[in-house]
Amino acid sequence: MKFVRTDAGRLTLALALTVLVALSPQLAIAASGEGAPKSDTEILFVIHNAWMLFATSLVFLMHLGFAVLESGLTRAKNTVNILVKNVSIVAIGILTYAAVGFNLMYPGEAYKGALFGFAGFWIGTDAAGLTAAYNPGYTYWTDFIFQAMFAATAATIVSGAVAERIKLQSFLLFSTIYVAICYPIVGMWHWGGGWLAARGFHDFAGSTIVHSVGGWAALAGVIMLGARHGKYVGDQIRPIMGHNLPLAALGAFLLWFGWFGFNGGSVLSAEPGAISLVFVTTTLGASAGVVGALATSWSIQKKPDLSMILNGALAGLVGVTAGADLFTPLYACVAGVIAGVIVVLSVIAIDRLKLDDPVGAISVHLVCGIWGTLAVGLFVPEKSLLTQFTGVALTMAFCLPSSLLIFFIIKKTIGLRVSREEELVGLDVSEHGQEAYAGFQIFTTH
Amino acid sequence: MKFVRTDAGRLTLALALTVLVALSPQLAIAASGEGAPKSDTEILFVIHNAWMLFATSLVFLMHLGFAVLESGLTRAKNTVNILVKNVSIVAIGILTYAAVGFNLMYPGEAYKGALFGFAGFWIGTDAAGLTAAYNPGYTYWTDFIFQAMFAATAATIVSGAVAERIKLQSFLLFSTIYVAICYPIVGMWHWGGGWLAARGFHDFAGSTIVHSVGGWAALAGVIMLGARHGKYVGDQIRPIMGHNLPLAALGAFLLWFGWFGFNGGSVLSAEPGAISLVFVTTTLGASAGVVGALATSWSIQKKPDLSMILNGALAGLVGVTAGADLFTPLYACVAGVIAGVIVVLSVIAIDRLKLDDPVGAISVHLVCGIWGTLAVGLFVPEKSLLTQFTGVALTMAFCLPSSLLIFFIIKKTIGLRVSREEELVGLDVSEHGQEAYAGFQIFTTH
Amino acid sequence: MKFVRTDAGRLTLALALTVLVALSPQLAIAASGEGAPKSDTEILFVIHNAWMLFATSLVFLMHLGFAVLESGLTRAKNTVNILVKNVSIVAIGILTYAAVGFNLMYPGEAYKGALFGFAGFWIGTDAAGLTAAYNPGYTYWTDFIFQAMFAATAATIVSGAVAERIKLQSFLLFSTIYVAICYPIVGMWHWGGGWLAARGFHDFAGSTIVHSVGGWAALAGVIMLGARHGKYVGDQIRPIMGHNLPLAALGAFLLWFGWFGFNGGSVLSAEPGAISLVFVTTTLGASAGVVGALATSWSIQKKPDLSMILNGALAGLVGVTAGADLFTPLYACVAGVIAGVIVVLSVIAIDRLKLDDPVGAISVHLVCGIWGTLAVGLFVPEKSLLTQFTGVALTMAFCLPSSLLIFFIIKKTIGLRVSREEELVGLDVSEHGQEAYAGFQIFTTH
Repeated sequence: MKFVRTDAGRLTLALALTVLVALSPQLAIAASGEGAPKSDTEILFVIHNAWMLFATSLVFLMHLGFAVLESGLTRAKNTVNILVKNVSIVAIGILTYAAVGFNLMYPGEAYKGALFGFAGFWIGTDAAGLTAAYNPGYTYWTDFIFQAMFAATAATIVSGAVAERIKLQSFLLFSTIYVAICYPIVGMWHWGGGWLAARGFHDFAGSTIVHSVGGWAALAGVIMLGARHGKYVGDQIRPIMGHNLPLAALGAFLLWFGWFGFNGGSVLSAEPGAISLVFVTTTLGASAGVVGALATSWSIQKKPDLSMILNGALAGLVGVTAGADLFTPLYACVAGVIAGVIVVLSVIAIDRLKLDDPVGAISVHLVCGIWGTLAVGLFVPEKSLLTQFTGVALTMAFCLPSSLLIFFIIKKTIGLRVSREEELVGLDVSEHGQEAYAGFQIFTTH
Repeated sequence: MKFVRTDAGRLTLALALTVLVALSPQLAIAASGEGAPKSDTEILFVIHNAWMLFATSLVFLMHLGFAVLESGLTRAKNTVNILVKNVSIVAIGILTYAAVGFNLMYPGEAYKGALFGFAGFWIGTDAAGLTAAYNPGYTYWTDFIFQAMFAATAATIVSGAVAERIKLQSFLLFSTIYVAICYPIVGMWHWGGGWLAARGFHDFAGSTIVHSVGGWAALAGVIMLGARHGKYVGDQIRPIMGHNLPLAALGAFLLWFGWFGFNGGSVLSAEPGAISLVFVTTTLGASAGVVGALATSWSIQKKPDLSMILNGALAGLVGVTAGADLFTPLYACVAGVIAGVIVVLSVIAIDRLKLDDPVGAISVHLVCGIWGTLAVGLFVPEKSLLTQFTGVALTMAFCLPSSLLIFFIIKKTIGLRVSREEELVGLDVSEHGQEAYAGFQIFTTH
Repeated sequence: MKFVRTDAGRLTLALALTVLVALSPQLAIAASGEGAPKSDTEILFVIHNAWMLFATSLVFLMHLGFAVLESGLTRAKNTVNILVKNVSIVAIGILTYAAVGFNLMYPGEAYKGALFGFAGFWIGTDAAGLTAAYNPGYTYWTDFIFQAMFAATAATIVSGAVAERIKLQSFLLFSTIYVAICYPIVGMWHWGGGWLAARGFHDFAGSTIVHSVGGWAALAGVIMLGARHGKYVGDQIRPIMGHNLPLAALGAFLLWFGWFGFNGGSVLSAEPGAISLVFVTTTLGASAGVVGALATSWSIQKKPDLSMILNGALAGLVGVTAGADLFTPLYACVAGVIAGVIVVLSVIAIDRLKLDDPVGAISVHLVCGIWGTLAVGLFVPEKSLLTQFTGVALTMAFCLPSSLLIFFIIKKTIGLRVSREEELVGLDVSEHGQEAYAGFQIFTTH
């Protein structure tokens, strides 16, 4: 870490040099190394870059949020499996993003306005990549690592929807392909300067580009897998309760916390007006989502349901993510409260369609992701609802077929779903030979 | 997020302009836009504002800390209810703070030295609110969101004390009123430039202004509600054990973590000397609180009690919060260790008075909040013990009667407490129709 | 917190002064107080210092990570004890570091190249300690608090290895001595400018200086204590399963999160190129560790084991910690994946040696700490494998005997291990008179 605490002599010299330089601006340019004055751009670069890494840390924590939210909302017998899936896919997602994803998503100027581009395998930069010449807001490495944290979220969104019945290797295979290839291609259309960017589509931090990309694959997975045994019996819908709601609440709070990095970092600098507005719209959106879901659940279900309220917070967050930089605080509340209402209705509707989504991932990330993207067209005068809709449709047109296809190929080769016996005994024992809560008495019939 | 990764031409131009400007300071003022040099104040403003939003994020996480601490220290059958209360009140607290609270707490210069003021409904600013002209440390939006995160803590403090027996809607109603109106009024006296500020009262981050404000309402709630069934039987005190102590420990650690934002952000800038001292006093206070509670619990109760030790950390934190900017590290240790001793004695004493506070909120936030406020008068030469006492007394004189009154009105209208049957079966089933741990075998008699 | 929101007059004056100063650089030096321009060094100092405190917060959270990881991987009946140990040792570690540790670890220039030095009892500084004259990257208080957060990790590493059988007071006594004296002495050799620093040894954030220092004591503790009852029966190894794997996963994720501060803060400034590279190498190392352990566990144990995968993440982190500032991203992956393989093999091997380490602390922190230190010699051209080995050997030569000696003296005086009866009933009831999960039905035979 450090060699010596203070080198008074060296510092005195540096300070003296600084004074000298301040007195003679003409000298400044000639001087070099430590004592040379930095331009405003260079100093701000240090601030912005640090902010981006703060945001990166918080986005990383969202993966913990997803892992425990999903664990809490499902049954005890599948908990180890869910944790293995989530830890593994974060790791694999980051590694594949270093190998191909980043260079697919940001292929460079040559692919401006295009639908596809690739800058070659593996990450790397020269010295210029570490200065403000690369980008006034961050270094090349910061750029990569911030984006890498985003990438794996697309897979963890899928994870919740296909929980409690998918084979581990099949999930890992699907997620690896989807995160390595499909997610960056869509990302390139907007953030990589591609087709959507050229048409004025606006998705600030990814209601469509991240959340609905994950959501379409979640929908595809639910369709291809079918429902968990015992969920739909004849015309009956039998609720399968989550086994650990404090864990679910922990997940929702951590996701909210992580979203300060997800949205705050999407400003791509620490520009004060922008990041502070984004914190306000993000927080108000989440709060309004809670209130919307609380009111809707209390009205419709008669008793306020905790998992609906938690999903309300997430729905509000997804709902303001596309426009967090443009919404006024009041519109952030409107977007959030509507998302909170939508998510409750959507969870109920999707269940009636016998699409078995154990955690409500499709409602939160796909339905509210679409809502948030359209809300930009509705609430921001200079944005076009039609363009926003185009972005939603294009994403569907690419993500739904491709995820169905990947799932289909996996189903026909290594298989997608565990056996009935494995599902009944639970994936923890059948896939991992482990119990999540050794020693605790848990109803075996559950 | 971003359109293109690098615009080499534009950057070269910007850098060239920067060089030109550095060579000719006289040109600097004339230049405008991106290339214009920023003043030190403007650059520092970017740093300070980013620091404040970092702090804001951490204070948000304290709400998770409160939620799981309270859940862990109570019974499994009331866990869903506690989580619903905590998530909801954070959301409602933030929204009402946007609607009225912020403008009650910071009514502006016109109300200097006053006891009450109001700047009108809903938040909003013009372009000046986003520059250092608003405040050299943060934008208007940052100001609001940092303060909003504080506001809801007053309600979550109450939540723990009234747990396991209060009706959901009654709690939400009380908290909404208390956070929207009572908390900002007291806050205005000191931080809004009101009556206490004009008299030299010192409460750096809110031992009185936040913690005791919550604490007085907690006391009022406990008085108005009465004890949980089975807690006091004749002359006997029957301990009701918390159901998930890892969850409680998680909460205490997260609160400690969040306190780095609570106290660190209360510096209102990233001024290096100030924020680093505050980190030291905060950490030493918490550490000494742990040691004080560990020693006291081990001596008095013979076996060291985990919940006492966790409350010792929180007591130490509350104990240094008023003076974290002025205490020397050694006095922070003294304030913390005394708080750690006090909290154990206070929890035992309050229980003997048959005031049933399931999590020890009154001891941690009220008793140690008073201690911390007075400690400033004792340990900081230029501060007056009498003035500190005046602040404590004035806060009591306002908060205790008003919270008793609000609770009384609620009791006489919609009722305050669930029925005996609902309490025995647990609020999770009676209020929410849900179990926190579906599938786990839990003693039904507990 | 603040007195008035805006003092327009004062600000106008300040801004006018800033303009004046910008126009007349010669005046700048003469001006003083708030309006005086700051040198680049002074402004960067504000950024760097804030970054270091961000890092400090994250390192603090690692203690929560250790606490819940250890709790989750052991039995329910010892959970309270583990939490008490971990909360207490963090507090004690920080306080003793203030009292003696910091001054042992950084004794000052006079002890350059030495093996021992001491700057006197208790922390303290004058005004210069709060400026860039102390260090361009942080104040004296930041220096202390960042280092203090590191110190206690050495003890929490030991905690996991000796869990479920050590007496509380014996553990606290050992840890206090080890953290107060042994850890800072080794730290001084490298980071305090001592013997190893003078010889070109490189351990960026402490694979050896922190992790193996904790690891050697863990090994000593396991040897001195012996295995838990029922672990090794004749030639049989009977696995003792962790009781709460979501808690363990929470711990691993939080440790990974905290490592962004551990490694990111070890840059000792917010220098953009350095901190962003460190974030990349740290993340890739952890990810590769997960993949390495997943593959190894799946191959050898046939079913992928969650605790192995979690330890794989930690192994990867420990494995890149020594060279996180020098590794290329590709070498970070190599160092991490090898660490992930090593940790699985090491856990199995150590168990076969009948060294009972309930959480795998020796494998993660000692074995991978050595690997990470040597990897610097292998993967960084300008570093010497022999020098790296010397650092490892010197650390062993000091830490292993001294921890064995301290444990031996404690064993012969107050005793080291709880009685067989206490161990069977669990330390929660015997040492604390508490249960971690009151109300839950837990197998009593477990």
